[in-house]
Amino acid sequence: MHKLVLIRHGQSQWNLENRFSGWADVDITEQGAAEAREAGELLRQAGYHFDVAHTSVLKRAVRTLWHVQDAMDLMWIPVVTEWRLNERHYGALTGLNKAETAAKYGEDQVKVWRRSYDIPPPALERDKNPSLRDPRYADLDPALIPDTECLKDTVARVTPYWSDMLAPAIRNGERVLLVAHGNSIRALVKYLDGISDDDIVELNIPNGVPLVYEFDDNLKPLRHYYLGDADAIAAKMAAVANQGKAK
Amino acid sequence: MHKLVLIRHGQSQWNLENRFSGWADVDITEQGAAEAREAGELLRQAGYHFDVAHTSVLKRAVRTLWHVQDAMDLMWIPVVTEWRLNERHYGALTGLNKAETAAKYGEDQVKVWRRSYDIPPPALERDKNPSLRDPRYADLDPALIPDTECLKDTVARVTPYWSDMLAPAIRNGERVLLVAHGNSIRALVKYLDGISDDDIVELNIPNGVPLVYEFDDNLKPLRHYYLGDADAIAAKMAAVANQGKAK
Repeated sequence: MHKLVLIRHGQSQWNLENRFSGWADVDITEQGAAEAREAGELLRQAGYHFDVAHTSVLKRAVRTLWHVQDAMDLMWIPVVTEWRLNERHYGALTGLNKAETAAKYGEDQVKVWRRSYDIPPPALERDKNPSLRDPRYADLDPALIPDTECLKDTVARVTPYWSDMLAPAIRNGERVLLVAHGNSIRALVKYLDGISDDDIVELNIPNGVPLVYEFDDNLKPLRHYYLGDADAIAAKMAAVANQGKAK
Repeated sequence: MHKLVLIRHGQSQWNLENRFSGWADVDITEQGAAEAREAGELLRQAGYHFDVAHTSVLKRAVRTLWHVQDAMDLMWIPVVTEWRLNERHYGALTGLNKAETAAKYGEDQVKVWRRSYDIPPPALERDKNPSLRDPRYADLDPALIPDTECLKDTVARVTPYWSDMLAPAIRNGERVLLVAHGNSIRALVKYLDGISDDDIVELNIPNGVPLVYEFDDNLKPLRHYYLGDADAIAAKMAAVANQGKAK
C-alpha cells in the first residue's frame, strides 16, 4: 500500500487579512507556524517517516515544510522546490481584500473567481507581472508564467508534476510529503479522485492539517483522511469556505 | 570569475558546552541562530545571490542554512543535503567535554586528536555506532560509515564531493553556497589551497561567518576573504583555537 501526505501551508498573513495571495510571496503568521508544528507532531506521533518532500517556491509553503521537518526530526531529507506546486495565480485580484472585492463585485462573482473551474479572474497586464522579473522564475520559459489562472489552468500544471515526479517516486516505494497551497492541492485531489468540475467548487482544504492519501499498486486512490481532531478540522474548512463572503 | 561561499554553522549547544560533536546531531543555540541570520544579512547587503545550496545531514548546518536563506529571501532555491559534508567523526570522544578530556589526557593529546592530520581519536565500537541505525544513513553502504576519523579521512570523503558535485556546478556558472562544519570546511580549504598537513593544524574556521573563495576559469583559487567585521572574526577564530585547552 502506497501513501502520499498533503499539507496546505499554515495560516498566512494574507489568509489572516482575507486577501488574495496567489503568487505573492506572503509569509505565515505565528498561528500558521503553530499549525505547521502541530502537523509535524501529529505525523511524528503517528509514526510517519518521509524519504523526500516537495513544495512550492513560495515561502509560506517552504516555511510550513521546515516546521514539519523540524517537528519530525527530518531536517536532513531531500526537498524539491517546484513552481508547478505554487498557489493558483489570482491575476489582478492579487493583494485585494476578499471581503472588499465581494462588496464591490458581489459574493457570487467572487465565488466564481475563487471556485469556478474554468473562469479566471481578470489578468495582470503582462509587462506589470512581477514574476517576469523574479529570480525564482528566471530559468522558466516566460510562456509558462501566468498572468492569471482558473483552477483548470492550475490542474494543467500540477498534474504533469504528479505524473512525472510524484507518481514514479511513490510507485517506487518512496514516502513522499507534499506541502503546497489550497488550490494546487485541490487541483491534485480533483485529478486523483476524479472530482467533477462542479463538485470541486465546494471542496475546501484546511490550513496546516495532514491529508493522507492511500493508493493501490496502480496508484488508484483507496481512501483519504485528515490526521487530527475532526471538529477542529471541520471548523477550519468552514472558515476557508466563508472567506469569500462580504463582511 | 567564479565564487564559492562557505559558512560554518552558527554556535551549537555543544560548541557552547565545549563538547566534541562530530556526527552527533546537536542543534544551534540562540547565539548560533543570530550568527546565521547575520551571515545572511551580510551576504544580502553585499549583493550575493545563490542558485543552489549544499549542506550536511546534521541539523546545526541545515538550520544555519535556513536562517541564511530566510535573511536573503532565498527560501526557494534548491538545497542538497549530503553526508560527505558532515563534521569529522570524533569516535569515542563524541559527547565528551573538551576541557575534561584535556585534563584527563593532556592538552597535547587533545590537540593531536583535534588537529593532527592523520591520527584519529579512539574509535566507537562498531556495533555501538548509532549511525548504523540512523535512517539518514540507511541508503549508504555501511562500509562508508566511520567509527572515527582523522582529518585525512574527512578530506578523503569531502574532496570527491568537490570534484563530482561542487566544481562542475561552479564551472558551469552556478553560484553555490556551502554550509558545513569546522572540519569539513578545513578539509575542503586544505585541498583548494594546497595547505600542508602541518599547517592545517593551525587553521581555525569561525562559526557563522561567510568565507568567500574566488577562482579562475580552471577553478584555481585566486583569493579568499571573510565578510564582516575583521576584529570580531579574529576573536571567533581565537575562541575555536582555545577550545581544546584545559580550563
